[in-house]
Amino acid sequence: MRISQLAIVGVGLLGGSIALAARRRGVAERIIGVDRRAEALGRAVADGMLDEASADLGAAAAAADLIVFCTPVDCIAEQVVEAARHCRSGTLLTDVGSTKAAIVRVVRGRLPDGVTFLGSHPLAGSEKHGPEHASAQLFEGRLVVVTPDADAPHDALSAIGAFWSALGATVRIMDAEEHDRALALTSHLPHLLSSALAGILPTELQSLTATGFRDATRLASGQPSLWSAIFHANRTHLLAALDLLEAQLRLFREALSHQDRRSIETLLQRGKTIRDDLAKS
Amino acid sequence: MRISQLAIVGVGLLGGSIALAARRRGVAERIIGVDRRAEALGRAVADGMLDEASADLGAAAAAADLIVFCTPVDCIAEQVVEAARHCRSGTLLTDVGSTKAAIVRVVRGRLPDGVTFLGSHPLAGSEKHGPEHASAQLFEGRLVVVTPDADAPHDALSAIGAFWSALGATVRIMDAEEHDRALALTSHLPHLLSSALAGILPTELQSLTATGFRDATRLASGQPSLWSAIFHANRTHLLAALDLLEAQLRLFREALSHQDRRSIETLLQRGKTIRDDLAKS
Repeated sequence: MRISQLAIVGVGLLGGSIALAARRRGVAERIIGVDRRAEALGRAVADGMLDEASADLGAAAAAADLIVFCTPVDCIAEQVVEAARHCRSGTLLTDVGSTKAAIVRVVRGRLPDGVTFLGSHPLAGSEKHGPEHASAQLFEGRLVVVTPDADAPHDALSAIGAFWSALGATVRIMDAEEHDRALALTSHLPHLLSSALAGILPTELQSLTATGFRDATRLASGQPSLWSAIFHANRTHLLAALDLLEAQLRLFREALSHQDRRSIETLLQRGKTIRDDLAKS
Repeated sequence: MRISQLAIVGVGLLGGSIALAARRRGVAERIIGVDRRAEALGRAVADGMLDEASADLGAAAAAADLIVFCTPVDCIAEQVVEAARHCRSGTLLTDVGSTKAAIVRVVRGRLPDGVTFLGSHPLAGSEKHGPEHASAQLFEGRLVVVTPDADAPHDALSAIGAFWSALGATVRIMDAEEHDRALALTSHLPHLLSSALAGILPTELQSLTATGFRDATRLASGQPSLWSAIFHANRTHLLAALDLLEAQLRLFREALSHQDRRSIETLLQRGKTIRDDLAKS
């Protein structure tokens, strides 16, 4: 796949990684980074990550064949609608947001004829942020979920799939709502738990933590503003996932209270079996 | 420090690592591994990790200057009492158990004159197990908590401290009960959460997990039999730690239910601040 003009809106860890991967793999002839902090991207241009940095979304949209939105989930939908007004017919738009249903819902029916938005979510990232942590390998071997509406043009879906594949990822098509329900459990709940656990650590016990506590709370270092937007957008599914977790915690609580060692071990064995399975996959 | 005869009871990840570290650093002239599966330790002897593998605790105890018990927390106390019957006066006994109060309580008053047990807990380990995963560096820069009774002989405490320091660790003296309360929050609760989270993952969502889920559940791969003994021994403090965590989860739940984005972000910021602090320490 070869894109003449690729625009990346929001050049942080993910946007920067898309630029680097597209450059490395020769996916785009020209890459424009669109960011309100365009002047902060001077280095990204100097280093060759971007051909140009601009604060003008409309101008970048008018020139682009493909636009990837890498901004916070609560900004994406309106930026898509705004950018689409400037796009030529045939332009494709996608994003990297961790929630999909709310974005797809806002965008639906608001784009000019011939301009198509399809939601994407690369299951790749880091608790770090900023283009200085970007990596050309970020998407290699990772899954990207694409969540087209039922009436999405087939060629647009193929092109978006080909784009992510060209960056090294594996693509899976899912319904946006089904994606959000799944990710509430596999991504948003772990983040919430990690943050809750870090949040109850008193200062005086910091020196009594080891690698276990640190691993279990690594996600808590993510950016609060980004994650509060994700939690808010996916709150219904996240609350349902939290229900499931709390039910499991109740089983542990009962087993501990009743000094029921066999049940404690059975619960731990269940976690181990599932986690060991994951390590093999 | 130089020990003439070091006996290690239970040669798994921790026991094996003590042997390797003691060997590397010239801490002991002779190292005996005591394990019911003594024949399984043939390789550890052949590789030079141990000078001898034995299934005879009494004989090893009679010859040892220092005995370190690296068996499950529900076995340690009775093995200490049993071994002590065979010890010469002046022999020191310690352990690596993740809980301390229950062990210290059972051992107290049951040792012959001149034989001293002091509880230890190295804050080092892995979700892996077995001497094949042992490492001579496991204790380097790690904290070892030593939990002497108020009437512990001063020279015994110095010697145990010197032993762990010689393996590369930093030593901290704590009350056994205080240790157990702290570790319930910093180690046992993270393990429980990790296991609970892994335990609710349906098979069909495995492929939708990324590094976040995997980090948050790494601890769940630990051995259920070892950890159920730890949870059981420390159940009172662990339940109190779980209360704290559940209170924090309720704050998240309320903020999500009330669509209170500011509170969600405040909670996430709290987790981030504490976790970032930890990364610096």
